[in-house]
Amino acid sequence: MPTTTPLGPGGEFDLIRELLARWGSRARGIGDDAAVIAVPAGERLVVSTDSSVEAVHFRRGWLTPREIGYRATAAALSDLAAMAATPLGILVALALPTAWRAEVGEIADGIGDAVDLCGVPIVGGDLTAATDLAITVTVMGTAIAPLARSGARPGDRIWVTGTLGGPGRAVAALSDNAAPDAESRARFARPVPRLREARWLAARGATAAIDISDGLIADAGHLASASAVRLVIELDRLPHVAATDVIAAAGSGEEYELLVTLPPSAAVHDFEQAFRVPFTEIGRVTAADTPGVEATYRGERVAPPRGYDHFS
Amino acid sequence: MPTTTPLGPGGEFDLIRELLARWGSRARGIGDDAAVIAVPAGERLVVSTDSSVEAVHFRRGWLTPREIGYRATAAALSDLAAMAATPLGILVALALPTAWRAEVGEIADGIGDAVDLCGVPIVGGDLTAATDLAITVTVMGTAIAPLARSGARPGDRIWVTGTLGGPGRAVAALSDNAAPDAESRARFARPVPRLREARWLAARGATAAIDISDGLIADAGHLASASAVRLVIELDRLPHVAATDVIAAAGSGEEYELLVTLPPSAAVHDFEQAFRVPFTEIGRVTAADTPGVEATYRGERVAPPRGYDHFS
Repeated sequence: MPTTTPLGPGGEFDLIRELLARWGSRARGIGDDAAVIAVPAGERLVVSTDSSVEAVHFRRGWLTPREIGYRATAAALSDLAAMAATPLGILVALALPTAWRAEVGEIADGIGDAVDLCGVPIVGGDLTAATDLAITVTVMGTAIAPLARSGARPGDRIWVTGTLGGPGRAVAALSDNAAPDAESRARFARPVPRLREARWLAARGATAAIDISDGLIADAGHLASASAVRLVIELDRLPHVAATDVIAAAGSGEEYELLVTLPPSAAVHDFEQAFRVPFTEIGRVTAADTPGVEATYRGERVAPPRGYDHFS
Repeated sequence: MPTTTPLGPGGEFDLIRELLARWGSRARGIGDDAAVIAVPAGERLVVSTDSSVEAVHFRRGWLTPREIGYRATAAALSDLAAMAATPLGILVALALPTAWRAEVGEIADGIGDAVDLCGVPIVGGDLTAATDLAITVTVMGTAIAPLARSGARPGDRIWVTGTLGGPGRAVAALSDNAAPDAESRARFARPVPRLREARWLAARGATAAIDISDGLIADAGHLASASAVRLVIELDRLPHVAATDVIAAAGSGEEYELLVTLPPSAAVHDFEQAFRVPFTEIGRVTAADTPGVEATYRGERVAPPRGYDHFS
């Protein structure tokens, strides 16, 4: 639907109009009970939903409203990246407390910044009052052969995009009312969903992928469970922001980098040149009776550093 | 994806496993970064997202946890009904406070009850901590020719499914710490998305539809704006629960009944026999320089009763 259905009267609709004015051509087909999207023939639909909640994923003052909107949307898009899917459209459910109403335009601008990264429209959403600010972004994409967590095979190599540890470092500093170093703060506030990178890697034979939201080791555990393999990770190799170390990098969550398994023969040497993003081999996949993650540090086996879990 | 990818360790995953155990075969393909769904060739994707938030859409004690889960899901499915779409899959984003953790199984059962109505799987979701319970349900469906709000034409007749006023009456009573009458409470706690009814009506020439979430008059206003027409509604004709009157029925929100426009020639006389649901003609569509809603009561024009708006 190229145009937007005219909206009726009411305060909620005034607020929706304010959002739509901010989004401009980034929002399309809004105003019906549901959005209508054409799915390319022969492709499968890939969908995911992801919530960013005040006091859980961020605190007021840690990020600008624009960064909060950006980050919530980028985090959701990262799930499409993990599947090597091509984005198709986005739904935004906003739970907006009165205390945040003045910032809604800036939050919308941040959502728009993330939408600009993937070039697909916001096709719908929901707006409700709330006590805590919450942004639930549903992303829809398509893929002919979606990349799953379950395809890693013994003998594959384990790779990671980007530089880890920044979000963990930034949250630790902010929790102590300290200013994080600039690199860590930027990695926390402006994660980049690795959408094009993932499709490039899938085309070069990637066998499995997951985006790092719970922490490298925790997410490696999810991939290991899904693939029924063991992931042996050499912590010494982990790419990390300057202010952290490899141990911090192994446990830092909400990175939105990709952990990918690839056959040893995969031709990925020109990844960094193609994307200007670090791409690092960090371990290998082995067969295992009990799926899981093994970590080594300076040649010795160590207990894998744990990630963050809202419910543990 | 017919099977479910094995999940990794952690408290959040234990909780997800608890939800999955409750849902049984109703959940399919959970455990990857995103769900993968086949869309039937030639059909368009229809998607909508809808949040139910504690203290906004319900209060603790007004509904059982099972009813809260059911209602959140039924409300989202109602958006697919309004488009005459066939459901394809559901995503559930749950923001779960510690104070609700013991009830999560019952909430899941209620979500499952609503899923049983439409026969499609829960394909994914998100789980986060929160201060207020919030359930954001994203529904995906398909349609060859989705029904929009924008197709009403002068000369069409206006029809409504079901019996209105119950949710408004129930919320008014509950807000006064009084027990609502049983009929009103049932209409509030167990709304039924009119999925099959909508497809039946679309096949018989329905020109536009909207589900009644803001209140009949408010939603008629949205449809009028979208179609650039005037809706003339005879309030006397409104079907209402016994404990209310037509004025209450006109303003009651969260009904999840359908307001539909149909050409006068449409053969819909056997609707009630087919679905055992009331189906009432309540007015007509006229041309208008200024789109909007006109109400008559006992033959005289009256100010249309207003609905509910979280932000007014």
